[in-house]
Amino acid sequence: MFDRVLIANRGEIAVRVARACRELGIEVVAVYSDVDRDSAVVRMADEAVRIGPAPARRSYLYIPAVIEAALRTGADALHPGYGFLSEDPDLARVCQDNGIAFIGPPPEVMERLGDKVSARMLMTEAGLPLLPGSLEPLGSAEEAARLARRTGYPLILKASAGGGGRGMQIVWSEHELARAHRQTRATAQTLFGDPRVYAERYLPRARHVEIQILADRYGNVIHLGERDCTVQRRHQKLLEESPAPSLPEGVAKEMGERAVAGAVAAGYVGAGTFEFLVDPDGGYYFMEVNTRIQVEHPVTEMVTGVDLVQEQLRVAWGLPLAIKQEDVVLRGACLEARINAEDPARDFAPAPGTLTEFAAPGGPFVRLDTHAYPGYRIPPTYDSLLAKLLVWAPDREQALARMRRALAELRVAGPGVATTAAFLARVIDEPAFRSATHTTSLVQEMT
Amino acid sequence: MFDRVLIANRGEIAVRVARACRELGIEVVAVYSDVDRDSAVVRMADEAVRIGPAPARRSYLYIPAVIEAALRTGADALHPGYGFLSEDPDLARVCQDNGIAFIGPPPEVMERLGDKVSARMLMTEAGLPLLPGSLEPLGSAEEAARLARRTGYPLILKASAGGGGRGMQIVWSEHELARAHRQTRATAQTLFGDPRVYAERYLPRARHVEIQILADRYGNVIHLGERDCTVQRRHQKLLEESPAPSLPEGVAKEMGERAVAGAVAAGYVGAGTFEFLVDPDGGYYFMEVNTRIQVEHPVTEMVTGVDLVQEQLRVAWGLPLAIKQEDVVLRGACLEARINAEDPARDFAPAPGTLTEFAAPGGPFVRLDTHAYPGYRIPPTYDSLLAKLLVWAPDREQALARMRRALAELRVAGPGVATTAAFLARVIDEPAFRSATHTTSLVQEMT
Repeated sequence: MFDRVLIANRGEIAVRVARACRELGIEVVAVYSDVDRDSAVVRMADEAVRIGPAPARRSYLYIPAVIEAALRTGADALHPGYGFLSEDPDLARVCQDNGIAFIGPPPEVMERLGDKVSARMLMTEAGLPLLPGSLEPLGSAEEAARLARRTGYPLILKASAGGGGRGMQIVWSEHELARAHRQTRATAQTLFGDPRVYAERYLPRARHVEIQILADRYGNVIHLGERDCTVQRRHQKLLEESPAPSLPEGVAKEMGERAVAGAVAAGYVGAGTFEFLVDPDGGYYFMEVNTRIQVEHPVTEMVTGVDLVQEQLRVAWGLPLAIKQEDVVLRGACLEARINAEDPARDFAPAPGTLTEFAAPGGPFVRLDTHAYPGYRIPPTYDSLLAKLLVWAPDREQALARMRRALAELRVAGPGVATTAAFLARVIDEPAFRSATHTTSLVQEMT
Repeated sequence: MFDRVLIANRGEIAVRVARACRELGIEVVAVYSDVDRDSAVVRMADEAVRIGPAPARRSYLYIPAVIEAALRTGADALHPGYGFLSEDPDLARVCQDNGIAFIGPPPEVMERLGDKVSARMLMTEAGLPLLPGSLEPLGSAEEAARLARRTGYPLILKASAGGGGRGMQIVWSEHELARAHRQTRATAQTLFGDPRVYAERYLPRARHVEIQILADRYGNVIHLGERDCTVQRRHQKLLEESPAPSLPEGVAKEMGERAVAGAVAAGYVGAGTFEFLVDPDGGYYFMEVNTRIQVEHPVTEMVTGVDLVQEQLRVAWGLPLAIKQEDVVLRGACLEARINAEDPARDFAPAPGTLTEFAAPGGPFVRLDTHAYPGYRIPPTYDSLLAKLLVWAPDREQALARMRRALAELRVAGPGVATTAAFLARVIDEPAFRSATHTTSLVQEMT
């Protein structure tokens, strides 16, 4: 197994990866920006390296600083976490060139799947159903209008180089189209340095369901069931669960098999997620592949018993998958609540500050993944995810009761600090959520 | 379901029971002695009642105060936890007389099984194998000597009214016998108000394995697999696990079936534990039944997915068991470390004090049951159990690695405070423990 892994990330995922390394007997190298000097992973690590000032482009997004830290500390592998450089094929390539194992798929695979247009093309060839839309980037508003005549409205315009819910715009009728096309191109250029956009039919009453896959270097690919991530606010997930409630019989299994076929077609290696939209009748449509570990991966861990981050490390080291498809059995139900330092009363504005109190819930079938601790100063610089609170129970009804209890036990306080905890307690008591008839519009309808 | 449950206990088990109540929508009444005024369960409860000064016999062991609190707060049930009054049939009777449901077996069953001599008699009739020993109390040293001629040495003398490892003495040869008999009788009188003692053959190289059972009022009895509690110090458990490693094929299942037969014979209702000694060849011998929830019950919860405290409440309410024997599947491996406020360097002397720091481990497959928090003042009055740290993994090897990691994350500090955490980290790295060839003498051999 690797001797030392550098974790090129921060926050809860850096802690998560450090735990997996510890359990595999691997030394941990943490990197940090100036404002993360006192972060939890720095305290846990065998060695910690400052890589630059607070702005991510000068530290966590700056490849030369990250690689230098890896070389200087003798790390033989690098885990990118999620966000930041995790889906950047250039980092994977630079790692390769420097003899450092990149914990993720090969750069060519990241490239093929990172471009959403080429990913859609590849997946439709592999037999995955797509929403009606463009298989080529839409060069002009006229092209977009021609497409829309075929598919109808609403449409959603997306950046080819995008993902994770950023750089999207919904178009409800033809007269909005030209302007939306222009705006999305501009946003795509700003966010991703690539103006290309494509369009898909937009399903306003859909569910978001994704499939977790694992693949080794020897052509073994399995899926680990599904996660329902329908509770979103502005395309950002707030609450996730597994199994997906109210999917028609057999649909989740079929989606899993299609995702495996897609991963095989892409030559995938490592952990990845196939995202789908599901319409109320159970029709499902491929959206994109995330070529990294996902925020909500613990949901799958709690129903399958598989440690996905350890599996990433094992696969990257060259081990074959230890589990076969038939060994993957989903047991019970799991819910994850994202505790963000945001104020729901002020339109979810970031609400960072210093934590005077931070008490984790405990007891049966509760998991907390966090980098927070009493006295921790949440920097205003990065995303607002403070903790992920998970519960497991034999069924969804009991998991909801347990989540209610665990959310009530969580105590986060500090001047100016607010969190999404109380809002999520409201979400799980919404009749539509309890009966699992909610769609991606749920949060919008509540606020 | 019950409306309000009074928890007649303190410490981590009071918190544990409160969590189960919360998840079932039951209101919680806490009771506390003066030194427990700021305890975690008081903070969690819907109502909290002072029942007396610190000494347990004037509060947690004083039935009139407990019952008055239940009546005054309108509690319709009482959960006794473990220790204190949990195995006292008088409390169960007083509850009955006052129209309060006692969360435990009927008083007659508690009586029958609480007397270790009558329990042995009942269980041998039900087909459970016993160690050679006395089926009657040993009235005199001569009777004891006559028995010893039949069974051989070493023997262990035990209080008929005892249990939980208290009031025992090992006798290695005949010349120690008379004195040991006298001393054990005196101890039994002091601890339990009952001088009767009995004797069993003592196995110096045994393992302690116990079976968790659940029974409803309708004659349904199931077992939930075994727990290995071999790591003990002076008959006090320090570390528990499930499944029991290195039991010969089929033995655990057979023990489970025998325990079920024993529970049926006793007319058992509720959660209970059948304790056995297992010799190196896999021969097993019934020791005693604990008619209450056990400290180490979460070990079983983590491998079966069953919430035992919720099941206790459901059964007491009159519901039939929701699970059948064939639904009970042990998955993976679980370890529990008892974090006691004791100083291993000073012969495990109690080391209470105020906690300036208390940080719980987190992340995948870790559970912490505790009443501790930063600023908590551990009273010197009660037992020293501060927290139970549990980990789960697909197999024992991985569970050991996870426990190592979790123990390293746990931070407990305060002036004068010491814990067993570092000592338990040593235990899990002992070759005998790692290879699961250890016996109940392990800790003695290490210290």
